[in-house]
Amino acid sequence: MTATGRPENGTVIALCGGIGGAKLAFGLSKVITDERLIVAVNTGDDFKHLGLHISPDVDTVTYTLAGIANPETGWGRADETWNFMDSLKAIGGETWFQLGDRDLALHVERTRRLRAGDSLSAITTDVRARLGITACVLPMSDDPVRTHVETDNGSMPFQNYFVERKCKPELRSIRFEGAQNAHVQHDIARALGDPDLRCVIICPSNPYLSIDPMLAVGEMRQLLTGTTAPVIAISPLVDGKAVKGPMSKIMRELGIEARHAAIAGHYDGLIDGFVVDSADEKIPDHVATAVENTLMATLEDKVRLARTALAFADEISTGQDVPGVRCA
Amino acid sequence: MTATGRPENGTVIALCGGIGGAKLAFGLSKVITDERLIVAVNTGDDFKHLGLHISPDVDTVTYTLAGIANPETGWGRADETWNFMDSLKAIGGETWFQLGDRDLALHVERTRRLRAGDSLSAITTDVRARLGITACVLPMSDDPVRTHVETDNGSMPFQNYFVERKCKPELRSIRFEGAQNAHVQHDIARALGDPDLRCVIICPSNPYLSIDPMLAVGEMRQLLTGTTAPVIAISPLVDGKAVKGPMSKIMRELGIEARHAAIAGHYDGLIDGFVVDSADEKIPDHVATAVENTLMATLEDKVRLARTALAFADEISTGQDVPGVRCA
Repeated sequence: MTATGRPENGTVIALCGGIGGAKLAFGLSKVITDERLIVAVNTGDDFKHLGLHISPDVDTVTYTLAGIANPETGWGRADETWNFMDSLKAIGGETWFQLGDRDLALHVERTRRLRAGDSLSAITTDVRARLGITACVLPMSDDPVRTHVETDNGSMPFQNYFVERKCKPELRSIRFEGAQNAHVQHDIARALGDPDLRCVIICPSNPYLSIDPMLAVGEMRQLLTGTTAPVIAISPLVDGKAVKGPMSKIMRELGIEARHAAIAGHYDGLIDGFVVDSADEKIPDHVATAVENTLMATLEDKVRLARTALAFADEISTGQDVPGVRCA
Repeated sequence: MTATGRPENGTVIALCGGIGGAKLAFGLSKVITDERLIVAVNTGDDFKHLGLHISPDVDTVTYTLAGIANPETGWGRADETWNFMDSLKAIGGETWFQLGDRDLALHVERTRRLRAGDSLSAITTDVRARLGITACVLPMSDDPVRTHVETDNGSMPFQNYFVERKCKPELRSIRFEGAQNAHVQHDIARALGDPDLRCVIICPSNPYLSIDPMLAVGEMRQLLTGTTAPVIAISPLVDGKAVKGPMSKIMRELGIEARHAAIAGHYDGLIDGFVVDSADEKIPDHVATAVENTLMATLEDKVRLARTALAFADEISTGQDVPGVRCA
């Protein structure tokens, strides 16, 4: 974590969940147009459905970076059709998890290759290359990590809580099965240990559901605290609320005030810099903070936030002041 | 095989392959509108593709009887879309076997249920009921039987010969892996052993590729020769040629003359009656033969052939002469 001079052509690692994270990853991919960008994606949401291995966050990031994501839903593909789903319903199959006809190809092919012994990261790499993505999109781990939630309606796997029950049960706690024994995907681990690492950016994803599964993986926290590259996080709160998804509800149920300070506190000991949409006096003084518009509605928003995050990280590296940034 | 008086409300069993057989099965389903019709379907063409269990003939019969089959191809569904296939191609998946978006639901759901321990016949029964089919569509066996062909290009599984290589290799012989140890599906076996069986109709399917896998199943031949109900076959040759598919080419390569007599000879010892589109002097004299238009272009054609086949069987049962029929 100690900031030192860093090469601008070093590798950038973005830790990323689904929708919000994917937007910043997209912005970063427009600024860093080669394999120096590694997008390390949460797989805690992965699950088996209809016999298929589904990796919702990896897919959202892949589709977003390939420019084929559905801009309205944030998940799935643009120009999607639903004939598979209609037919499945007609023959009595489970339909609570929507799988579009185009999207389905990825799940079927991934499942086939996993059964044939290929790793999730090898499959993800082949797919992103086929779709013209130059950034390294990688699952956080090739070992299974599965998010489970404890709720007032009992314990359940994440997707049953998130999609089937629409986050209605009240959340009590979250656990990441398998994380303890999982290994950080090897290319991510190697890049985190590389002295030429430029920075690590924790995307504005849900800290509790999208980033925590990564931090729970065996050596991830150790690698993040061990690197001399700056680690910066972008707060997912905009105007004190989650842009999308259940984060505000979850923070309330977990008894956490929905303020940037709580997010910064959550990453305490890990981050050197913090990007927020507006100042929040409770952010710990020892974390350098940058203020930027973090709502990513347009391509320009995504690219601007990516540039700000990278410049901020570089300034932390070199120990310079950044305009608009309050450094500790 | 000995013909005796039979109840007209007894069960009718149709042995059936894909396209041609499905047409007659459809005709029969318009004449017998309840579960007294059992369509026993070839599963020798079944295979695993993309990790999915595909039962081409069972699907063709199911879609045909449900009125949702593609009338142009003879396989797959009407109003089909191909977005899954397009996406699969884009990510580098295998695309030699076409799977439509609607069709895919059946393969995914079947595969899921087979993995969960359900039998192919239980799944087929649930699906046909969901799709409003009253006839019992059943796989010939719940045990795996797999057609392999020996060709001038070596040995290969049926679908690789039939679809991937478009029947181009020269056929030398056909074998049915697993048939020896397979059991006839229990409802089919029970109906074949039932003294109230009305008749067995061997549909105008390819004898070598669609009917032989059934006849190769352990006790099938024994059950067919053991029943006192009449067994009649409809010749798949129309104007001395196969209506669709590689039958003519296969007969040539196997050194069999494409005449009704060859088909009757193939079923020698099994059938009591034979339906052909035109007289063929070489048909064995001990087989009663009926002449009927066997080209099933319209619904009326299918129903007429179904009625002719049933009436012919009933006449054989009662020992009466049938108009237009030459009895031995």
